[in-house]
Amino acid sequence: MSDTLERLATVLDARRNADPDSSYVAQLHHRGLNKILEKVGEEAAETLLAAKDVRVDDAQSRQDLIGEVADLWFHSLVMLSHLDIDHREVLAELARRFGVSGLDEKASRQRDS
Amino acid sequence: MSDTLERLATVLDARRNADPDSSYVAQLHHRGLNKILEKVGEEAAETLLAAKDVRVDDAQSRQDLIGEVADLWFHSLVMLSHLDIDHREVLAELARRFGVSGLDEKASRQRDS
Amino acid sequence: MSDTLERLATVLDARRNADPDSSYVAQLHHRGLNKILEKVGEEAAETLLAAKDVRVDDAQSRQDLIGEVADLWFHSLVMLSHLDIDHREVLAELARRFGVSGLDEKASRQRDS
Amino acid sequence: MSDTLERLATVLDARRNADPDSSYVAQLHHRGLNKILEKVGEEAAETLLAAKDVRVDDAQSRQDLIGEVADLWFHSLVMLSHLDIDHREVLAELARRFGVSGLDEKASRQRDS
Repeated sequence: MSDTLERLATVLDARRNADPDSSYVAQLHHRGLNKILEKVGEEAAETLLAAKDVRVDDAQSRQDLIGEVADLWFHSLVMLSHLDIDHREVLAELARRFGVSGLDEKASRQRDS
Repeated sequence: MSDTLERLATVLDARRNADPDSSYVAQLHHRGLNKILEKVGEEAAETLLAAKDVRVDDAQSRQDLIGEVADLWFHSLVMLSHLDIDHREVLAELARRFGVSGLDEKASRQRDS
Repeated sequence: MSDTLERLATVLDARRNADPDSSYVAQLHHRGLNKILEKVGEEAAETLLAAKDVRVDDAQSRQDLIGEVADLWFHSLVMLSHLDIDHREVLAELARRFGVSGLDEKASRQRDS
Repeated sequence: MSDTLERLATVLDARRNADPDSSYVAQLHHRGLNKILEKVGEEAAETLLAAKDVRVDDAQSRQDLIGEVADLWFHSLVMLSHLDIDHREVLAELARRFGVSGLDEKASRQRDS
């Protein structure tokens, strides 16, 4: 499972130039960056709402949030693909900030303080 | 690199109950779900703005976007951790929709049409 | 023109219980708070994107932003109506913070510093 | 109260070139469009969260939402001012769509269908 993002990114790149009529991914690329970013914004908003609706004993509410986060990450990956940025650069950035170096993440995030 | 999310999620869970004064992650959990969701919303907005500022020949603009997506995914993971949802459920959902089954992703995304 | 919000709020309240098949406002109320909030989130994202696309000498780009802000304010008003909150309470809050008292707005916004 | 937006817009324009050290508005303009748009995005997210927390019998929860919507509209107005767009153009657009013409708003909003 650990390479799901890897496989997904490969699929996304392959579908980038597919027929927009048969591929949602190709359609997004065809409609352009603003359309892709609108989707990222929409899915972020839906993630917030689904997270507020999570109830400990309500499995459906948890599954709904999982679906929204999947949509958010998915459209983030399409955005990166559209801009020719390898998603592994994002993972490398996360690894750099939180990696095996043993440094507390706080140091690398001072700008958020 | 493929297991960066895996390692990061492990680190995030371990820091959940750390001292809020020394760990940004612990501080987020301490401040609660709304604070974490505010950060998800903020980072989503900053991702949109950074994506609009990407220029093909401007490496810094690309690095800025990479940093914002890292922030967005990072705070998404903290949110999942806060709600006791395993991030692998999100990856499984992505795999289900886009997996090796060979089905075009379109079918599984009809609700977005 | 100064009472546009006033007239619009009156119209919105009147349409709240109209036939969802003939009124977009009634349809939003019928679909519920989450749907209304999704629209607020979407229009906020579209406002950011339209603002990034504004060019001084491109009248259409300015008109596009005006349309997105209108959509954002409109759905904010529907949200307030749905929650039985009078939009004049928002205006009163703005007046309180920035009113004729002569106080610089900074004082009332220290929490944003 | 109906001219609160009018007075606020006048104040915002006047403070645009004030000393950034003493005026939050001047500081926003000084920091530039992206900073202003980040605030619009943040306040939109906080509006969604506050709306989800509204409880009928909890006056504070309602006041919190009123404060967030005030922040959202306020930063929208600063954005318009920064881009030299008169907020009355937004009100005119709202009036055009929902005005005294008697037309149902649905017709003018077909693009949202």
